[in-house]
Amino acid sequence: MTKAGNILLFPCPITEGKMDSLSTESIDLLHQTTYFIVERAKTARHFIKATKHPIPIAQLHIHEITNQKQENESFLLAVHNGFDVGVISEAGCPGVADPGAEIVDWAHKNRIKVVPLVGPSSILMALMSSGMSGQNFAFNGYLSNKKPELVQQLKILETKVSKSDQTQIFMETPYRNDFIINACLEILRPETKLCIACDINGPDENIRQMKISEWKTASKNHYHKKPCIFIIG
Amino acid sequence: MTKAGNILLFPCPITEGKMDSLSTESIDLLHQTTYFIVERAKTARHFIKATKHPIPIAQLHIHEITNQKQENESFLLAVHNGFDVGVISEAGCPGVADPGAEIVDWAHKNRIKVVPLVGPSSILMALMSSGMSGQNFAFNGYLSNKKPELVQQLKILETKVSKSDQTQIFMETPYRNDFIINACLEILRPETKLCIACDINGPDENIRQMKISEWKTASKNHYHKKPCIFIIG
Repeated sequence: MTKAGNILLFPCPITEGKMDSLSTESIDLLHQTTYFIVERAKTARHFIKATKHPIPIAQLHIHEITNQKQENESFLLAVHNGFDVGVISEAGCPGVADPGAEIVDWAHKNRIKVVPLVGPSSILMALMSSGMSGQNFAFNGYLSNKKPELVQQLKILETKVSKSDQTQIFMETPYRNDFIINACLEILRPETKLCIACDINGPDENIRQMKISEWKTASKNHYHKKPCIFIIG
Repeated sequence: MTKAGNILLFPCPITEGKMDSLSTESIDLLHQTTYFIVERAKTARHFIKATKHPIPIAQLHIHEITNQKQENESFLLAVHNGFDVGVISEAGCPGVADPGAEIVDWAHKNRIKVVPLVGPSSILMALMSSGMSGQNFAFNGYLSNKKPELVQQLKILETKVSKSDQTQIFMETPYRNDFIINACLEILRPETKLCIACDINGPDENIRQMKISEWKTASKNHYHKKPCIFIIG
């Protein structure tokens, strides 16, 4: 019987082309892998090519994750046939605020070995840089884009910070940064700390943390349409 | 006036000597840095040496983070004098379940630029590998070592999973793995999923996720005295 392959979780850069943000172990293993299940085929091909994969891209097996569980699973048969299959998301770590978890869940159900590789995660890098507690934290994904619900959510997050000392992380689509920053300044208490981690690992990286009272008078022009992670603590 | 330096956050391997888990950007920047504020001087020296730092270790400025805020801040004056200062913890990412946040907080208060580098984090790698939701998760640090309190905590975490679909991560000191695994099997519902991510990025790496009902009959010998991250979802 063929020994089953592994599911390898390959992070990719969070800033396009920033190949030096990857671990050498991850690139070495990527170069030994010929099957990939990915969030988006086009960007995955682009990324794999940029790592200087020794095999021509056209000869690699690249499958885009679909909602059709069966299609994904039929591609994943390669694992049972002894091939390693790499999982790659659009940016950063597969499965963390990105697709990939369903593939890993399938692997566990089928007793396939799962191997995580090291690479960039904007959430983790924002947390490291926030100066807030990394002993107890929560990532909340995207908050609501409707003002009344957002107000409620921010109040709940602030209560979690003050009651449980749990750092609260969330994100927003870049074109709504102004909306969320204004809501934070309006809703949160003056003493609450807010960290805005903007364009992490990118050319315009800018990470600032201060109290809401200080943010009120600080310049906020920097954040328009740039990817940001928000942290309150 | 001298331009201030930066605070650079350097992750280090979570398995001793595993240098290929670091990003090349991080190593390049480390080699340009001569001031370091660290969790433990001995291991930091060992790590810096292993990266093949071009300057002899004895000529680097290495300060161990103390409870004496003033001592740390007097070392950090180097930043005002234009030097970059690197922050290094015992293993993984500074400030994430490790010291370092107070240094970053100081940097923000003093309007010093903070730059996070890419490297391994056992928490993030465990989450990626769990096959559970990475859209909404919390890291809870260490749970209680007293049975009645641990029981309460596990029940609360399980409720957060079922009510808010929030994946719950926690850790334990390796010699208490058996204690915590047994408590999980006793307290959690049969349908709850438990992931044990053991010796991540190490020679005995083993990551398994299954329902509590399945864990009851599975072998659990592997985990004795090895570093583990636990995730319920």
